[in-house]
Parts: sequence; C-alpha cells; structure tokens
Amino acid sequence: MATHPLEEILHPRSIAVVGASGGGGRGSGFLAPLVELGYRGQIYPVNPKYTEIMGIKAYASVKDIPGVVDYVISSVPASQVLGMISDSAAKGVKAIHLYTARFSETGRKEAADLEKEILNQARRAGIRLIGPNCMGVYYPGQRISFSSGMPTESGSVGLASQSGSAIHEIVDMAAQRGLRFSKAISYGNALDFNESDYLEYFAQDSETNVIMMYIEGVRDGRRFYDTLRRTTATKPVIIVKGGRGQSGIRATASHTASLAGSMQVWETMVSQAGAVSAQHPSELVDVATAFHFLPSISGRRVGVAGGAGGSSVLAADLCEEAGLDVIPLPMEIREEMKAQGSPIWDWIGNPADMSIRIDRSWDTGEMLKIMAGNPNFDLLITFVHAHFHGGQGKVSAETFLEQYRLNELNNKPLLAVMEERGQGSNNDDDHTWFRELMEEVKAGLMAAGVPGYPSIERAAGAASKLIGYYQRRESR
Amino acid sequence: MATHPLEEILHPRSIAVVGASGGGGRGSGFLAPLVELGYRGQIYPVNPKYTEIMGIKAYASVKDIPGVVDYVISSVPASQVLGMISDSAAKGVKAIHLYTARFSETGRKEAADLEKEILNQARRAGIRLIGPNCMGVYYPGQRISFSSGMPTESGSVGLASQSGSAIHEIVDMAAQRGLRFSKAISYGNALDFNESDYLEYFAQDSETNVIMMYIEGVRDGRRFYDTLRRTTATKPVIIVKGGRGQSGIRATASHTASLAGSMQVWETMVSQAGAVSAQHPSELVDVATAFHFLPSISGRRVGVAGGAGGSSVLAADLCEEAGLDVIPLPMEIREEMKAQGSPIWDWIGNPADMSIRIDRSWDTGEMLKIMAGNPNFDLLITFVHAHFHGGQGKVSAETFLEQYRLNELNNKPLLAVMEERGQGSNNDDDHTWFRELMEEVKAGLMAAGVPGYPSIERAAGAASKLIGYYQRRESR
Repeated sequence: MATHPLEEILHPRSIAVVGASGGGGRGSGFLAPLVELGYRGQIYPVNPKYTEIMGIKAYASVKDIPGVVDYVISSVPASQVLGMISDSAAKGVKAIHLYTARFSETGRKEAADLEKEILNQARRAGIRLIGPNCMGVYYPGQRISFSSGMPTESGSVGLASQSGSAIHEIVDMAAQRGLRFSKAISYGNALDFNESDYLEYFAQDSETNVIMMYIEGVRDGRRFYDTLRRTTATKPVIIVKGGRGQSGIRATASHTASLAGSMQVWETMVSQAGAVSAQHPSELVDVATAFHFLPSISGRRVGVAGGAGGSSVLAADLCEEAGLDVIPLPMEIREEMKAQGSPIWDWIGNPADMSIRIDRSWDTGEMLKIMAGNPNFDLLITFVHAHFHGGQGKVSAETFLEQYRLNELNNKPLLAVMEERGQGSNNDDDHTWFRELMEEVKAGLMAAGVPGYPSIERAAGAASKLIGYYQRRESR
Repeated sequence: MATHPLEEILHPRSIAVVGASGGGGRGSGFLAPLVELGYRGQIYPVNPKYTEIMGIKAYASVKDIPGVVDYVISSVPASQVLGMISDSAAKGVKAIHLYTARFSETGRKEAADLEKEILNQARRAGIRLIGPNCMGVYYPGQRISFSSGMPTESGSVGLASQSGSAIHEIVDMAAQRGLRFSKAISYGNALDFNESDYLEYFAQDSETNVIMMYIEGVRDGRRFYDTLRRTTATKPVIIVKGGRGQSGIRATASHTASLAGSMQVWETMVSQAGAVSAQHPSELVDVATAFHFLPSISGRRVGVAGGAGGSSVLAADLCEEAGLDVIPLPMEIREEMKAQGSPIWDWIGNPADMSIRIDRSWDTGEMLKIMAGNPNFDLLITFVHAHFHGGQGKVSAETFLEQYRLNELNNKPLLAVMEERGQGSNNDDDHTWFRELMEEVKAGLMAAGVPGYPSIERAAGAASKLIGYYQRRESR
C-alpha cells in the first residue's frame, strides 16, 4: 500500500511560521506551542518586521530561510497568501496550513474567487493545503500543536474537525475521561485535503484506533460514503454533524462555507456506512470513551448494580430507553444467593437495589461478581457511590475501589457511573479531600479498564451505540 | 383557607427517634443530623438498651418520655411497629415518619398485610404517617434533616420524592447550581399521606416557589390530576416518573410497591395538567434552575452569542432541536453595526460567532447588549468561555465577568453555558487557580440572576421547558 500523502506532511523536518509576531496574538500563538512542546525539527519564524521572535532567528520571507522547509503555517492576511505560496514554491515546501481566513465563508464573491485562485496556484506548485480558515494540526507524538494548553501525551484517538474550537472543546473533555489523541486536525474550508482524505489517513494510521469527526459539509459525498464504509470495517468512526437545522445550515455557511444537506439523507448515509452519529461533543466523547476502554460487545443484556431505591428504578428506565435490555435477574443467581443464605434472594432484582440488603455479604462487589459470572449478561453498569458521610472516616482510593472487586469480573465489560453531584458535606476540607479521592477513584477505574460516566443515561447511551456499531460490523 | 395538616406536622415541638442507637448505623443516623443542624425543639432518643445516646438522655419507650412528643422517627424493625404506634398513641403523637421498611415492597403477603394493619391502627389513633420505607423530612428552616451532609441554608424549591436516594442526589446536584430547598420529603410507599397531599402542601406553602417531584406510582390518579392542574396555575411543577418501561415497572414494585401505569397516559396527564416532565434527575435540576433564576418568558426567539466556529453552528442546531427559534440576526442590528463601522456587519449572524470579529469593539458583551435591546429576542444564551491560555495572565472573576456586561441587559432573560471541560493547561497550579476562578464566575453569574449550564443542549432544553410551561399557563 502506498504511503498516504498526509503521512509525510505530518512528519515535517522543519516548520516555518509565516506571519509570526512578538505580541500575544495568533502570530506568536502558532510559534509558542511548537517551542513549548519541544518540536524536534527546525522552527523558522517568518516576518520582515523582526530579526528574532521568542529568541529564534526570524526571516523576512520563506525564500530567505537557509535550510529545508517542509511545512508552512500561514497567519498572514488573505491578501498576502498568493505571494507567500509563490515564495514557498520556490523553497520546495510540501504543505501549507492556512490559518488565514476570510475567504468563501465571508459570503463575498471576491473572497471566494481568491480562495479558488489559491487552490489553483498551490496545485501548480505541487503544494498541498490544510484549511484555509482552520487551526491545523495537533500531533503530540511529533510535538506539534496549535495551542499551548493541549495534553503532551499521545493516545490512540484520531480527530478530524472542520472547527478548531471544537477540537479544543473535544480534546479538553476527552482528556478528563482518560482519552489522548494520536492526531487532531482542524481543516476548516477543506479547500484541498477534505473530509475523505483525513478519514482515509486515520483509517490506515497505525497510531489511531478510534476516529472522531466534526463535519459541517461534505465536499464529495460518494467518496466520503465509500471511505467511511471501508473504514468502519476495522475502526469505529463517530461523527457529529454541524448544520442540521435551518439556523445551523445558515451558520455553517458563514463558518466554513459548507453546504449542509438534508439530515435524513445524512443519517441514512452514516448508518449504512456503519458509522456512529453523535448529537454534540459531550456524546461524541461519551461514545469514544466506550470504544477506547471496552472490547467488542455483541449483545444488549445489561446487569446494573450499586444503585439505591429511585436511582435503581430510573437506571432500569434509562437503560431501556437507551436501547439496552434490562433482563430480570437470572434464576441461577437467585438460587446461588438462596444457597448462600441471603435473605433477599427472592426480592433483589436487576437493577440490584443495594438499599434493600440486610447484611454486608451481598454488597455491590458481590453482585457485580455474580453477574459477571453469569452468561446471560453481555455487559454491566455499576454506580460508584460517591457520597461522603462525615461519620464514615476518610478512606483511600484503593480501599474505596476494593468494594467493587474489579479483578473478579471475568473480563465482563463494565461501565461506571460517577454522578455529577456534590459530596454531601458542609465542610471545605472535606470537599477538597473528597474531590481528590474521586479523582483517584476515577483514575483507578480507568486503570482497570472501566470507563466513567457522569450519569446512567450517558453510560447506557454510549454502551448502546458501541453495541450497535459492533452488531452492524458483524452482520456485513 | 384551613391550615394544611402537614403544616403542623412539619413544625413539631419535639422529635422522638425510636430505634436510635449509639453505633454508626441508621439509628444514630437520624439522631445525628438533628443534633448537628441544631434542631431547636426537644430531641428524645428511644431505645431500651441505652440510657443516653450522643450525650442525650434516652428512654425505653415513647410512653416514658416526660414531655410532649409531636413527631416520631421510627427505625425499629417492622415487627415492632404496631407496639411503637400504640405507645405513640398513648403519648398523643401527631405524626410518625416510618423509616422502617420491608412491607409491601418485598412482594410478600404477610408484609403487605402488616402494612395495612399499621395504617388501620394509625388511623384509629389519629396519627398521620410519612412513609413507610422512606428517609422522611429535610427542612433546613426548622433544622430538620435525615442526613448530616445536606445544605443548612433554606431556599424556595420544594421536593416530594418516593425515593430517599433521589433526594440526596437531587439536593446535591441542585446545590451546585445555586438552588436551595424549602422542604424535601421522601415518602416511600405513600401509605397515608400520598403524592397529592405533598403536592397540595407545596402548592399552598409560602416558602415554596418551584416544585419538584419524583414519583413511581400514583395512589389516586383523579385526585392527583386535579391537584396538579390547580397547582400549576400558580407554581411550576417538574416531575420525574420512575418506572416507565418494562424493567423499570418491575423495579418500582420492589422499591415502593408502586403500580406504574402506561407512560403514554402519564405523559398526556402531566401535559394536560400543565406540569413539566423530566427524564432524569439532571434534567429535573436543569429545569428547576431555569424556573428559579428566570422570569416568565413567553416567546421562543433566542439570541446566542459567545461561541466560536463549530460551537456556534452546533448551538444553532441544538437550540432548534430543543424547540427554540434561532432567528436570523435582525436587520436593525446589522444596520447599527454598520453605522458604528463594524467590518463584519454583513457576515455576523445569530448565533454570533465571535471568532470572526476583527477588532475588540464587537465582543460578546457588545453582542449581548445589542441583542438585549432588540424586541425580536425573547431570551439570550451566552457561552462563558473558560479556556485558560497561559499567556493571558490571571484575571479576577470581576474582570472576567465585566466582558459580559450583565448590567446592561435590560432585563432580557439570559442563560450561561459553562462547559464541562478542562482548562487547557498542563500546570497543576493553573488548574487549581482556574477551577477557583470558574467557581467565582459561576457565583457571580448566579448573583446577577443568570443560571449556568454545562452545555448548550441542556441550557436550551431547560429554557424550552420553562417557556412551554408559561405558554400553557397563559393559554388556559
């Protein structure tokens, strides 16, 4: 298989930041993260007004740079782009990321014409374009980023997004859920490389296992469908579509000049291609978290434990509404509980309401263990109860987690619900201690391969979408 | 109007905790919060095994208590309840909260028979019952609580719930959103007082403005419909129904022995009665937060500002999908922007994508102000951007909030979106500082009457349900 054209572009030997400046604006904004993350190739600031920026020698033009220049980040105004491309062509540049915006998305004819002229000129020069009107590449493994605050560690999630703000939002949220990225690429107006190119790249990229996309409009529908269908045969792809309604379609036009089409056609296409739709970034991250932590799950029969009273009742409703099958507690489990002398063998159900138990022997961990051992369950969800009662003393995260018996789950997939609630204390020290405990508990769960969700409806929704993906994949 | 029977019961001169014990279990669990919150009446622990508990003189029986006993909290086993009622009757007790459980919810005939016998005996003695199988009363104004960790401050939200765990969950979540409670009552199996009694009480209660309910089954459908319809004429009522699907209905039976009916009938009833349905506790709190902070809003035309790029596009989609009307930016606003020399007057839209502005003069506060002054908007939603860039310096919450010009909003209702994301920094000190800043910003917004939501879809959903309530109320 030939190397994907983006593979070489994403491993540049050097990067020129054209339009770099010494101030706090976006000019130094593209330079600073490369310096701070420790990008290993050469960095060349380009701006005729400076001799050096951030202690690095600056050049008046790309042409003046003495060494090889593989990759250019452009934040010059739109009117200077043609000149910059011609300088880059002279220098043998392979790719340009055009942060530069105000082209077709302005709705103005002359700006759209200039955009076309830029593409033509780049094609003549053999230069590939990322953008315009985008934040470009975040590739922590190569220490390339467009923002200083992004995580420095690499992961296995790939993200292609028409929006740069969506990348910030998604990477931030995902980081809190234990996800890290192989690459995240913001591609704006998709003038040269488009959605299908980025998807094709992630499909063949050995660093990427789960693919996320934020798309406002597709440049080539047929090619995208084919690429998507091929990709989902081996890797899950989760897509948020921006521009679904009348007002959203208006907004995509002024954001990335995309022509958003009918949602019905879109949803059918995504589903037939075997991909997963998400409504918003939170759901995108929820579903990707499930794919990252959980294996393939082929059935929908869920066992739920750890809730109490009303939360158990609602857990049943919300799991069912999300498309999971909350089966009655299997008779073998009742019989085993009866044999062990449990007084609630005929009363406990699924969800297992832990508020009805009489003795300590049938705690949440015991229920999870017995459910994990039963072939009628395809997956389990547990509530991780994080309510601090002053009287109970301050336990460690290890002690807290022991009650869930995570090492006795027999590889049965488990999701944890850690609710978005306070900690039931009026004491500030308790708050701080509790928040830190819960962070450690979350880390401990993730280390054991258990993804955490802020509510049962979000856990059940993510699990259901994961199961739908694997079921469709197996049936083709 | 006659005083509601619950009014006297909720203002007891003294409380006896029968089955109190010195250990860490629920016996001292009911005593401790009364002591810790500083309940002003007499507290009498009752248990023949103790002479004192938590430093308070204990009695062998309710009969042995020297003073008046208005209210009893029972955590004795089910088998001792009849004797405890007869002691209480002799003492002139007015009401008993039966934490005691294992009655009809066990599915066992003898337990259900005992439950009936308890009701008959209480009726003969003129004693009213809360429960059984419930946590009882949280009434911060009277310093009555069933848990030490609940907020000590009072508020104007009333909550009646068949589940005690749901009260913990809802009060915790609501507290983080700036809501406090007048009373929250967990009523379990609803043997005597039922859903209609609690609703009727909150309807006439001057301390309560917004009513939340968690209901698994209704004892008297006709009475509940009538009470609900009367109540919603003056106060919003938001209801989560537990036991909606097959497995949830199974779960309600073993939780509170409720017979959950058809969901279609339920939804029609709630809607015709002018109340608001919520799917889960998070949504319940979202909607109550809107009612608490916002005035009546009669139209659905929303203006959105503060988003950037993709988040603006999705804001349009998600508002529209929630039932709001994302109108195009009114021409008068474009003309005013043009007159003031804004270069983006013909490009900016609604949602106002703040990433396209060229100069600082048209920031989010400016957009909010001009939208607030325009009669085409019924409400506004703003993103409060909480992304920390190392270079920007550490601002105060006051400075941060100034950019939103909250004092120039002309009483136009505003909701704020503060996303559930990290802070874009790899530095722990930055994290702590940033988290604290965001807490202060949230408090500042609430002080200005602006409710905060973790995502645009939740803000839009809550606003839409609030508007639906007021529209139905006005049309009857």
